[in-house]
Amino acid sequence: MPHFIVDYSGNLHDRLDFQPLFKQLHEYVVSTGVFPLGGVRSRAIRCDDFRVADGREDFAYINLSMKIGPGRDDSLKQEVSETVFAIFCEWMKPVTDTGYCQISFELTELDPVFKFNKNNIHSLFSGNG
Amino acid sequence: MPHFIVDYSGNLHDRLDFQPLFKQLHEYVVSTGVFPLGGVRSRAIRCDDFRVADGREDFAYINLSMKIGPGRDDSLKQEVSETVFAIFCEWMKPVTDTGYCQISFELTELDPVFKFNKNNIHSLFSGNG
Amino acid sequence: MPHFIVDYSGNLHDRLDFQPLFKQLHEYVVSTGVFPLGGVRSRAIRCDDFRVADGREDFAYINLSMKIGPGRDDSLKQEVSETVFAIFCEWMKPVTDTGYCQISFELTELDPVFKFNKNNIHSLFSGNG
Repeated sequence: MPHFIVDYSGNLHDRLDFQPLFKQLHEYVVSTGVFPLGGVRSRAIRCDDFRVADGREDFAYINLSMKIGPGRDDSLKQEVSETVFAIFCEWMKPVTDTGYCQISFELTELDPVFKFNKNNIHSLFSGNG
Repeated sequence: MPHFIVDYSGNLHDRLDFQPLFKQLHEYVVSTGVFPLGGVRSRAIRCDDFRVADGREDFAYINLSMKIGPGRDDSLKQEVSETVFAIFCEWMKPVTDTGYCQISFELTELDPVFKFNKNNIHSLFSGNG
Repeated sequence: MPHFIVDYSGNLHDRLDFQPLFKQLHEYVVSTGVFPLGGVRSRAIRCDDFRVADGREDFAYINLSMKIGPGRDDSLKQEVSETVFAIFCEWMKPVTDTGYCQISFELTELDPVFKFNKNNIHSLFSGNG
């Protein structure tokens, strides 16, 4: 944890470079001191079949879902949400400055009935978390 | 809001045209008067690696997830769910009339810890919502 | 139900064969006697844009989300979760024995406001559910 999951309309694909976004998000959440680097993961899902509002071809959408484990205090979650959303919007600025886009972000606490992890990456970053 | 998210088995791909479905869903939810057009978005995710039941090649699945913000009253949600599912099944009829398919639909209220939106499309439709 | 949903980093794609995993998962859940074969479905979503931890190219992730309807008792859910996770990790062993990977699994109860299904496969397996 945390997981960052982006999904977006395919008409944005050629204008987006995810690595700088993901790198900045990972470095930020690790900098808070409560998320170990070895557990952070991000991915993006491209959706070529989509419709935004009334379907104009120059309309786009992008959604960022951030999932964390339960139990962090509210002030931390507030701060993390605001900072992550700011990073996200700043990264999207070249798109939103010149075109139409729905940007959405949500932070959810993953509180499943049962949850298991197996991770042989944590040990590489034992100083980070 | 709302978000419509379809995912489906890749063996359906050549038989599905999503734009008529999405157009009808968007027009319907806007017609209820409680969802502004500028916030409606739909997408479909194709899954080429899938297995349905015992894995027969002619088995297919499709899932539609509809996410809305919290706070709408139950009778509205009931009506919207039933109508959206009816539109969905009608659109799938050419498939289900001639083959095997699992169709599933769910309406969930998105009630994350924190949620932010930035949307420069709403202003284009100020009369709609 | 249940739904199995995998998403994974694209650098794993050539090393994964999903059918044996999905087959084993389907056979296992049906063997418990509480999940009808006709309602079981699995899919995998490949994510080519991803970042794991500090972004080393040989880092990978895979996530398995299992969704079931509400109302099963806790001991069953515990047993199912543990067995599914064990099957998942065993299937991933060729990867985790030789490389770095974050494996995550979660069982969630799908408890939406409204949920509908239409399924013409169940009738083929009337003895199973």
